Formats: sequence, structure tokens, C-alpha cells
Amino acid sequence: MFIIGELINSTRKAIAQAIEQKDEGYLKDLARRQANAGASAIDINAAASSNEIENMKWLVDLVQEVVDVPLCIDSPSADALAVGLEHCKGRAVINSITAEKERWAEVLPLVQQFKSKVVALCMDNKGMPETVSDRLRVADALVNGLTAAGVSPDDIYLDPLLKPLGVNHLYGLEALDSTRQLHDRFPSVHIVSGLSNISFGLPERKLINRTFMVMSVFAGMDAFILDPLDQQIMAQLAAAKVLAGQDEYCMDYITGVRSGQVKA
Amino acid sequence: MFIIGELINSTRKAIAQAIEQKDEGYLKDLARRQANAGASAIDINAAASSNEIENMKWLVDLVQEVVDVPLCIDSPSADALAVGLEHCKGRAVINSITAEKERWAEVLPLVQQFKSKVVALCMDNKGMPETVSDRLRVADALVNGLTAAGVSPDDIYLDPLLKPLGVNHLYGLEALDSTRQLHDRFPSVHIVSGLSNISFGLPERKLINRTFMVMSVFAGMDAFILDPLDQQIMAQLAAAKVLAGQDEYCMDYITGVRSGQVKA
Repeated sequence: MFIIGELINSTRKAIAQAIEQKDEGYLKDLARRQANAGASAIDINAAASSNEIENMKWLVDLVQEVVDVPLCIDSPSADALAVGLEHCKGRAVINSITAEKERWAEVLPLVQQFKSKVVALCMDNKGMPETVSDRLRVADALVNGLTAAGVSPDDIYLDPLLKPLGVNHLYGLEALDSTRQLHDRFPSVHIVSGLSNISFGLPERKLINRTFMVMSVFAGMDAFILDPLDQQIMAQLAAAKVLAGQDEYCMDYITGVRSGQVKA
Repeated sequence: MFIIGELINSTRKAIAQAIEQKDEGYLKDLARRQANAGASAIDINAAASSNEIENMKWLVDLVQEVVDVPLCIDSPSADALAVGLEHCKGRAVINSITAEKERWAEVLPLVQQFKSKVVALCMDNKGMPETVSDRLRVADALVNGLTAAGVSPDDIYLDPLLKPLGVNHLYGLEALDSTRQLHDRFPSVHIVSGLSNISFGLPERKLINRTFMVMSVFAGMDAFILDPLDQQIMAQLAAAKVLAGQDEYCMDYITGVRSGQVKA
């Protein structure tokens, strides 16, 4: 299970403000707490700040002062990705590539140059996927293209792209079926989701998010972009691993309960 | 989704005591609260009391004074089942038949006489099922036998029988795979589980129980024997229905949130 801590993202108001004010203490603390809570990587997004390139560089340096986990360099701008990646001490995750022609042409060279892991969104120039088979078609292009360019399947994180249940109550099932079929088709590739889109427009979103997460673990998803400081989602993830047969002797679960991190 | 409220069960100490003391207020309140919380049926078990037959009769009459939902008549004794069923005003659920020769011979006539719904445990004279295919073999015998005896598939609730994850960390996956395969094989038959066995011996059992429940809804389970007064499990069930595409326009979920019953 690969957990990308989502909190240092400038589209969140408090983060945009902390970046503008160069509030080192707040941002370092957020990085540290996410790593301590079990994040496998820390997302870094400065896209909604006034000077993305400068801020990306600053954030990457800052966060690496306090945590050793890999960073997930997150931007719509290939230039910002490049600067972030240059400043990473270790291998990073790129968030993200797509099969859109322009994005593919900009980001693939970065994946190759920095030997990064990469989140690959199942979308191309036709836009957001409409069906399960749309996702499979785009995933074929992404996985074939990336592996042909020398990327190991184990470094690819396919994102089936969740759509809001509030728009169509069958979008949950569509995402889960996509996950299962992607997992069956590409058993060595990882499958990742951000958890917030699925609940957009519904009340009590965290309940929907963590319920989707549980089902998706059973469907084959093995990476999430989420808030690792949300104890309930992390506890339920620990339980989901047990139920999906991914926690031998239930050791991680029992250890989590003993440490107080996992509770009902 | 069919929810059998599990609380009026004499194997629970407080209930055994309330039955011995003929504490009508306590037991009526428990029946009423379970129905109000969304139970589709109320389990009635007097097996661990001093005079099961008398107590079954008394309980069935008592509970029917306050709730209109069907009762689930629960006993290892066919005589107690018969007495309970005779006193039910409407159609009841029998908990349970098995493919064990003696149990089958005792309970099948009751299913036929009272035109009951029936929980059918996937076990026979060989004992508890060891594998997914054990369950499929026993389920074949149960479903074929019951339908040959005139029982509608829609009145059968197959229980795959959960085993504790604490004994083997693959038992969760085994139960989920069994559920999926039973659902594929018998699409008109229901699949039910009691949720407590899966977590036996582990800490924070409610977390394991509700996480299993979420995965099992995706796998095709559509009935549960559980504590409907546990707000967290009921909230997560509402979310699970949304994610499994079983709640058109998310109406039940949104209604539940508005009433305060569904919260993260």
C-alpha cells in the first residue's frame, strides 16, 4: 500500500497562505506529521501560489529538511515539475502524466531523466473517460508508452479518475469495475486514486471517501492520495488490508491498535 | 438490503438476564429501537435461557406488541423454532437450516408449513466449510433442496459462514470470494452474514466488522445480522449502498444525513 499525503497542496487556502507568508514552521510540521502518520510520500503542489517555480523549489528544499520519504511533485506545469524534480534528493513521484499529446510530450522526458515513479491519469485528448472501456483503452496507451520508454511497470501508478456520485449514482461501481479490470490486465502496475472527487457535492464526504477506499482495496487499488492525519481513514485502511489478505498474521493491524493509531 | 437486528439474543448476558426477570420494558425498548434504526427484521433467540420454549413464546408475543417488522426465529432447537413460528403474526425468517442431515430433516418441514424465509448455513455433515468450493458444493445442495421443496429463491438467505481472521489472515478474502461466487451462481438468492465471527480474537472488532461489511456489499452480500443501534455501521452501510450503485440519486444516503442518522 502506497500512501501519498495530500495536505501540502496550494489549492487548499491555508497552504496557499502559508506559502505566500513563507511559514516554514507550519509547512514543516505538516510534512513531519504526514510522514509520522504513515505517508509513503508527500505531495508538493505550489500551482495556486503567486510564483510557482520559486515556491516549488523552496517547498521541496524545506520539506526535505524534515522528512526522508519520497516527494510527489505535483503540477500542471512541466517547468514546475522539472524544478521540483531537480531539487529532490531521492527518486520522486511525478503527479502526473496523461495520454493527452501535449502533456505526454512534456512529461515523458522528465520521467526518463529523473527515473521517477509516475501517476498516469486515464485520460487523453478525448477528455475524461466516460466508461470502463475508455479507461482500459487509455491505460493501454499509457502503460505501453511508458514501458516502451524504459519505465518499469512497478513505477507506474494508473489513476482511473473518479467522478462524483452526486452526478451519477453508478460512478462508484464504474470506478470499482475499472479498478478491477485494470488490476487484472496490468498486474504489475499500481492503481491509485485521489479520494475526494467521488464524494464531491455529497454531504459527510469523509464517510463516502473511506467507504470507497475499502471497496477499492478489495478491487485491487493499492495506492491512495489522501489525508494521512485523518485517523478514521488510516484505521480503516489498516482494517481493509487485513480483510484483503494483505496483512500477514494481522501484524500491522495489531501493532497499529497497540500504538493507538488504529481504533474503531 | 435486509438487516436482521441481532440484539435480542439470549447468548448476550444482559438479554438472558432480562428474559429470566421478564423485564418487558427493556426488551420491548430494544425491539422498538432496532426497528426505528432500520432493522428489516428482529432476531429472537431464547436458547440460552432456562426454559427456551416458554421464553420463545413469551418473547415473540412481547416483541410483536411494539414492532411490525418480521421476526427472525433463531434456535438450535426445532421445537423452539416451531413454537416461535406459530406465534408470529406475519411471515418470519427461520435462523437457520443447514445441509446437515438431521437439521435439514427437522427444519425443512417448518419452512414449508410456515412459508418462511430461511437463513441457510453453508455447512453439512462434513462440518464447517474449509474452502470456497466447499461452500459452493453445500450451497448447491441447499438451494436445490429448498427450491425443490417449493421455496422461492428470493426467500433463501445463504450464509457462507465467516471464520476468524485471527486464525488465518486469508479468511477475509475467502469469505469475500465465496460471496462473489455464490452471488454469480445464484443471482436470485440472497447472501447473509453475521458480522462478529470475522473479527473474533482481534482488537477493535467493530472496525473489522464494518470494513468487512463494506467489501462484502461490493462482493454481492445483501443481508446482514448486525447491531442496528451501532450508528457507525449503519452510516457506513448507507455509504456502501451508494458506492455499490444501490441508492438511486443517493436519496437514501442524503435522507439519512438530513435525519442525523448518517454521519462521518
